[in-house]
Amino acid sequence: MPQKVLFDTDPGVDDAAALLFLHRAAALDLVGITTVFGNADIATCTRNALFLKALFGIEAPVAEGAGRDLRGRAGPVPVHVHGENGLGDAPLSGIDLPRSDPRPAHQLIAETLRAHPGEVRVIAVGRLTNLALALDADPGLVELARDIVLMGGAFAGGNGNVTPAAEANMIGDPDAADIVFGAPWKVTAVGLDVTRNILLPRRVLADWADSGDPGLEFLAAAKRHYVAYHDRFGVDGCYVHDPAAVAYALDPGLFEITEGPVRVIRDGIAMGQTIQADPAIPYPPGSAWEGRPVQNVARQANASAILDLFEETIAVSAEV
Amino acid sequence: MPQKVLFDTDPGVDDAAALLFLHRAAALDLVGITTVFGNADIATCTRNALFLKALFGIEAPVAEGAGRDLRGRAGPVPVHVHGENGLGDAPLSGIDLPRSDPRPAHQLIAETLRAHPGEVRVIAVGRLTNLALALDADPGLVELARDIVLMGGAFAGGNGNVTPAAEANMIGDPDAADIVFGAPWKVTAVGLDVTRNILLPRRVLADWADSGDPGLEFLAAAKRHYVAYHDRFGVDGCYVHDPAAVAYALDPGLFEITEGPVRVIRDGIAMGQTIQADPAIPYPPGSAWEGRPVQNVARQANASAILDLFEETIAVSAEV
Repeated sequence: MPQKVLFDTDPGVDDAAALLFLHRAAALDLVGITTVFGNADIATCTRNALFLKALFGIEAPVAEGAGRDLRGRAGPVPVHVHGENGLGDAPLSGIDLPRSDPRPAHQLIAETLRAHPGEVRVIAVGRLTNLALALDADPGLVELARDIVLMGGAFAGGNGNVTPAAEANMIGDPDAADIVFGAPWKVTAVGLDVTRNILLPRRVLADWADSGDPGLEFLAAAKRHYVAYHDRFGVDGCYVHDPAAVAYALDPGLFEITEGPVRVIRDGIAMGQTIQADPAIPYPPGSAWEGRPVQNVARQANASAILDLFEETIAVSAEV
Repeated sequence: MPQKVLFDTDPGVDDAAALLFLHRAAALDLVGITTVFGNADIATCTRNALFLKALFGIEAPVAEGAGRDLRGRAGPVPVHVHGENGLGDAPLSGIDLPRSDPRPAHQLIAETLRAHPGEVRVIAVGRLTNLALALDADPGLVELARDIVLMGGAFAGGNGNVTPAAEANMIGDPDAADIVFGAPWKVTAVGLDVTRNILLPRRVLADWADSGDPGLEFLAAAKRHYVAYHDRFGVDGCYVHDPAAVAYALDPGLFEITEGPVRVIRDGIAMGQTIQADPAIPYPPGSAWEGRPVQNVARQANASAILDLFEETIAVSAEV
């Protein structure tokens, strides 16, 4: 039986690759897509999700989610990373967009989890606003989700990508992130500690561009802008952030995990920082980590095996 | 020529061992001792410094420093770690206390640095209040110190000793620590990332207790309480925190250093956390690390070589 997966996403170039990876993985059954602002504004992210649903031949519904963080901030859009259209300015023409699901994302999340108690794994690769809203509306969800696998965080200290303290999905809505890590469901974070060591080489993108597979050809086009962004920092290829969370769902054995309670710093210069307490260290009573659930954090990963899994799975055309 | 060293300390069991290590290292010339509150209140720390000066046969002056942090907080005293008298409740009788220097610590620091421009290395193993006060009174000191080597910080994230975010010397006066790391002099931090891997075994303490050397016998007695504290957490022996900073002064090659600007979080649940930005990662403009001086952080160390250096140096009686 394939794992039921709900994909919460802000497409986003990297999100698009993760979505096709997820869709083409026989062991995963995509049951819903929810959008959140982040790599682009919410209308653009939803439009992109609908475009990708049509292009990739996905059946699952797309529900639009939060356009602002829990404090009502929309924030600037990283066009320098994901282009004006959020998908590397690759042309989105020539396809009729399907309709989105009428429900807001947090409602689709809640109803999907309630429909399959204990079966649905949420893979969240954007800000965690929709999950926090779903928990707020329906706290019983903590008993209903199989678990949450998220791309986010920078746990080693000083290795964020927006500030030295913070990774983008965490600083994008630190309140939501702190709520999601603090809820008594199982969360596994695959963050920059791992993903910054997983680099998709240019030759793969060249192969995709010549593959004759519309999905891969689109990803190759979308990633041109993303690779150019990486180029500016001397990185040859592009990081595989969001697909790493999908890889975790497929083969957790490729990741080295530490267990402990996690806090996300909500304010100040460390805003968005993720700190996992080492449970082996005894702390005086009253720590802000005390009583928080033990969550999983990926610290190391077998990068070449993850890349192999990603490349092989995504290249299996859905038409076969 | 031995290095001139000014020792800023809050004795403290671990401080006492570092002081004897420093005093007996032929390559180091102890030119002054300044006290700060921390392991005990300021009067107790100064009394302890004077006692150790007499017991160890140290010539350098002892000047009393800050009894409160930069915000005026004195904080609780960790009697469960360092005993009621700050020296593991080892008896302090049988010795006449010398007088302390009449100058406040920050003045002794300033005058000592001004007397030997570029020559004096400050080894600071407590809160950094005195150094911050000295900088405030005399900003030109940044040009006059050889450098600052401090014991403090937990840079890996989640590995503090007071909270998962924070090490004791940093959370004890986070404003002072952020000022000291932000000043344009060279700071090298030897923190828990390194010292938690340096464990002094019980057999060394047993050797000291039977050595016939009054300094070592006192340290063995003082450390009994400290070892009992470690025992409660299944640690067999005791951590060598403050002496590690002295070891760095003697042989920096035993340490693996990363370079980058450092911020100390001043407020919130991460208060006292030390975050060094990785200079290889490009950040958008406006980060709170931007424009801060590049400082050194010890990440790894050769623990057995440090222990050997410590044991051999401290066992060379001053009488020889």
